[in-house]
Amino acid sequence: MTYTLAELAARIGGRVLGDAQVEIRQIATLERAQPDQISFLTNRKYHAQLVSTKAGAVILGEADADATDLPRIISANPYACFAKVSSLLNPFPETAPGVHPRAVVGEGAQIDPTASIAAMAVVGAGAVIGAHSVIGEGCFVGDNVVIGRHARLYPRVVIYHGCVIGDNLIAHAGVVFGSDGFGIAMDEGRWIKIPQIGRVVIGNDVEIGANTTIDRGALDDTVIEDGVKLDNQIQIAHNVRIGAHTAIAGCVGIAGSTTIGKYCQIGGSAGILGHLKIADGVVIASFTLIGKSIREAGSYAGIFPFSKTDDWKKSAVHLRHLDEMSNRIKVLEKLLLKQES
Amino acid sequence: MTYTLAELAARIGGRVLGDAQVEIRQIATLERAQPDQISFLTNRKYHAQLVSTKAGAVILGEADADATDLPRIISANPYACFAKVSSLLNPFPETAPGVHPRAVVGEGAQIDPTASIAAMAVVGAGAVIGAHSVIGEGCFVGDNVVIGRHARLYPRVVIYHGCVIGDNLIAHAGVVFGSDGFGIAMDEGRWIKIPQIGRVVIGNDVEIGANTTIDRGALDDTVIEDGVKLDNQIQIAHNVRIGAHTAIAGCVGIAGSTTIGKYCQIGGSAGILGHLKIADGVVIASFTLIGKSIREAGSYAGIFPFSKTDDWKKSAVHLRHLDEMSNRIKVLEKLLLKQES
Amino acid sequence: MTYTLAELAARIGGRVLGDAQVEIRQIATLERAQPDQISFLTNRKYHAQLVSTKAGAVILGEADADATDLPRIISANPYACFAKVSSLLNPFPETAPGVHPRAVVGEGAQIDPTASIAAMAVVGAGAVIGAHSVIGEGCFVGDNVVIGRHARLYPRVVIYHGCVIGDNLIAHAGVVFGSDGFGIAMDEGRWIKIPQIGRVVIGNDVEIGANTTIDRGALDDTVIEDGVKLDNQIQIAHNVRIGAHTAIAGCVGIAGSTTIGKYCQIGGSAGILGHLKIADGVVIASFTLIGKSIREAGSYAGIFPFSKTDDWKKSAVHLRHLDEMSNRIKVLEKLLLKQES
Repeated sequence: MTYTLAELAARIGGRVLGDAQVEIRQIATLERAQPDQISFLTNRKYHAQLVSTKAGAVILGEADADATDLPRIISANPYACFAKVSSLLNPFPETAPGVHPRAVVGEGAQIDPTASIAAMAVVGAGAVIGAHSVIGEGCFVGDNVVIGRHARLYPRVVIYHGCVIGDNLIAHAGVVFGSDGFGIAMDEGRWIKIPQIGRVVIGNDVEIGANTTIDRGALDDTVIEDGVKLDNQIQIAHNVRIGAHTAIAGCVGIAGSTTIGKYCQIGGSAGILGHLKIADGVVIASFTLIGKSIREAGSYAGIFPFSKTDDWKKSAVHLRHLDEMSNRIKVLEKLLLKQES
Repeated sequence: MTYTLAELAARIGGRVLGDAQVEIRQIATLERAQPDQISFLTNRKYHAQLVSTKAGAVILGEADADATDLPRIISANPYACFAKVSSLLNPFPETAPGVHPRAVVGEGAQIDPTASIAAMAVVGAGAVIGAHSVIGEGCFVGDNVVIGRHARLYPRVVIYHGCVIGDNLIAHAGVVFGSDGFGIAMDEGRWIKIPQIGRVVIGNDVEIGANTTIDRGALDDTVIEDGVKLDNQIQIAHNVRIGAHTAIAGCVGIAGSTTIGKYCQIGGSAGILGHLKIADGVVIASFTLIGKSIREAGSYAGIFPFSKTDDWKKSAVHLRHLDEMSNRIKVLEKLLLKQES
Repeated sequence: MTYTLAELAARIGGRVLGDAQVEIRQIATLERAQPDQISFLTNRKYHAQLVSTKAGAVILGEADADATDLPRIISANPYACFAKVSSLLNPFPETAPGVHPRAVVGEGAQIDPTASIAAMAVVGAGAVIGAHSVIGEGCFVGDNVVIGRHARLYPRVVIYHGCVIGDNLIAHAGVVFGSDGFGIAMDEGRWIKIPQIGRVVIGNDVEIGANTTIDRGALDDTVIEDGVKLDNQIQIAHNVRIGAHTAIAGCVGIAGSTTIGKYCQIGGSAGILGHLKIADGVVIASFTLIGKSIREAGSYAGIFPFSKTDDWKKSAVHLRHLDEMSNRIKVLEKLLLKQES
């Protein structure tokens, strides 16, 4: 697969400066790119590499249009342009349709003839697998699960019974959909289990990272709306709703019955307590715990800054005495006020 | 399955007010319930919905006994009552006993004739599977593992060799029991591995959430006592002991050789360092790191409160200077004291 | 397998004091050891148990050489000595070579005749499995993956296509190598996916804990160097590089394109943001977020200390007002300075 720079720009958008006939086979970083490869600059940090790169062409933003003489595509959104060029040069590999002889398919399951069920996968009774969907090696798709078109389940994904998945899902290895929510009630010294009879419902165009878990609802459903992107090892508790086009980085935990708005961005290892409501367009920093609802868009943080351990100890020891410190300041202020008067 | 309100109360406890003959098929939230469904109020937040609900009956606490005219069960513990009613209306589905032809069972394994081994599961040599236990699709049960009665392993659970599991275990997809603890010793610039020869021993009535991991002991065992409930993506290190009826929310990490008491509750993403001892009845807030032993019951927290990022920056910058701030207050106090005298 | 104390010392190093002919069958803690077992003291906490132990022999550091009359090995590094003695007494179990009839092997895969492929495992086309390597039950090894010699993959490990693994890997259940990194670009209100075309490259002598995930690179590779030890449930993002002999405890998250030096130690549930550089020999405390590069070796921390929840509330309320507090101190200082002059 080779494209001239002109062909790339024609398909992806952006204007070409320099030799539009240069042939491009692959995309690479400025540092590693070869003359038959295109590169890109989207992070100021790497600006110096623009001089030394051996790339045959580069993708640049408008502000950098004249920063090199290399053949180049100038784009209003060079990062998206890079994503599109890379997708064109690296199309998803085709998977042959059909059910592998070492897969097991339950009674009454409807598997589209263009779908693929890999070795060691198990598809439950009454499940529906849409056109062009790929169920990877060792996946488990429970009874009566419905999966849309063009889904891609990597190996060892588990979907419990009754869950509903839209089109174009990408689920990486080890993802679990529809495990029981953590519902327990204390009764005379013992926890009793609350049956989890809701489902997990996933919209279209969702991608979910490796070993992420999404619990089924206790009574109503857990819902992931269209275009949501979840990284690895995220934990979504029962009855959470995540709004469309929200992106969440790795290791985040979201407690039960919380609703997150659309177009939010949540940093790695952050947490959100249960029964909260987060507005659309909220950005939450990594490692921040959100303990109450957020009603307006904006950027929020709560991180203890690190330092050398010896310095940290000197600061940390005062944290348990901030109230006292505040009171001592008040006393000083009163004393001085008295003196002044 | 339909029950009259009178029948429900007779089986579960609580007294009936209003029409005791109303027929109930399912349980639902106040917002969604239909006339053949029962609902419940256990969280003040949802009180207003009691007026508008279409539920045929509700479960209420004593304080709310007169808050509606709907047919109702009044209970001293309405949340436990809800759990029991839901369990009655949603019994665990039966699984046909027997070993699936696509499962593999090792030499000398003893599988109770009422137990079920699903497709793609592997049961090791000498393993024992108790009556009515269900080993889900693609599970791995190692050599000489012993599993009690009425266990339910959802798909892709892994139990390493030699672990011992009590009765009534529920283990969700992706749980790992008995992986090696993180035992390494530095020797002339290289880490050498310390063999992990202990086991994981699980009591009765334990439930464990998706993708949680419990390491085997280095020499002695890692122990989870009766009635412990663990949520998803929890990490339990080697030689930890968790006391009976303790409940732990998602994403918690517990380091090696720590002992946690009975009836503790640990919030999501909290952490406990190694070689500590936590007393019975300790409640730990989400996102809190416990860095030393806790000797008395009570509630503990250590969370950096979040704010708008700009405000957070203003505060956070002072955290590295608390010691200096404290010293400046002392100087002021001395100066004023001198003036006063 | 029985060794005299003299034989153990001859193979492992250290000098013997007391009866060198005592026979040792196993290793155990001071508290549990029996007369045919050896124990060890490496943690001051357990010193009292040296008096009461029934162990037949003990491993001690030079400082404790005379702390008991028991037969003993005295070592300059007693913890490493313990590790070596335990390894000698507990050798890795042999696995019979060959491909299980319930495994699936793709076209052109090269499996060394001394390697073992367990039931339900799937090995992709063109993959290479080195001598004496063991691919556990239900593992997935993608197309063209290369695995060195003496690797041990426990059940349900997933390695995506094209990844390269050195010699002596130990990967515990549920580990995922080579899942897509979290690469997305916003384009007219929708996230578009950036293909992840790099690989994961793992050096020699690496051990990785249960359910840990390591994403493949976006363009270049994600690299784990020789001798790295990773605990359970760690998340390594795309294009991270971890230096040789670094050890990382459970639940840590490392964001994209960060480089970590050699011989670092990172505590549990810590986090490191993306595009940073951490020097060799850095020690990071548990629960600490590293938000900027660290250029020199040493110990770093940033943890909010826990207290009783009521006390925590009293402190925490001031955290949002540290800037104001600092300003009030400045005002007081100015006032006093004015008075003094």
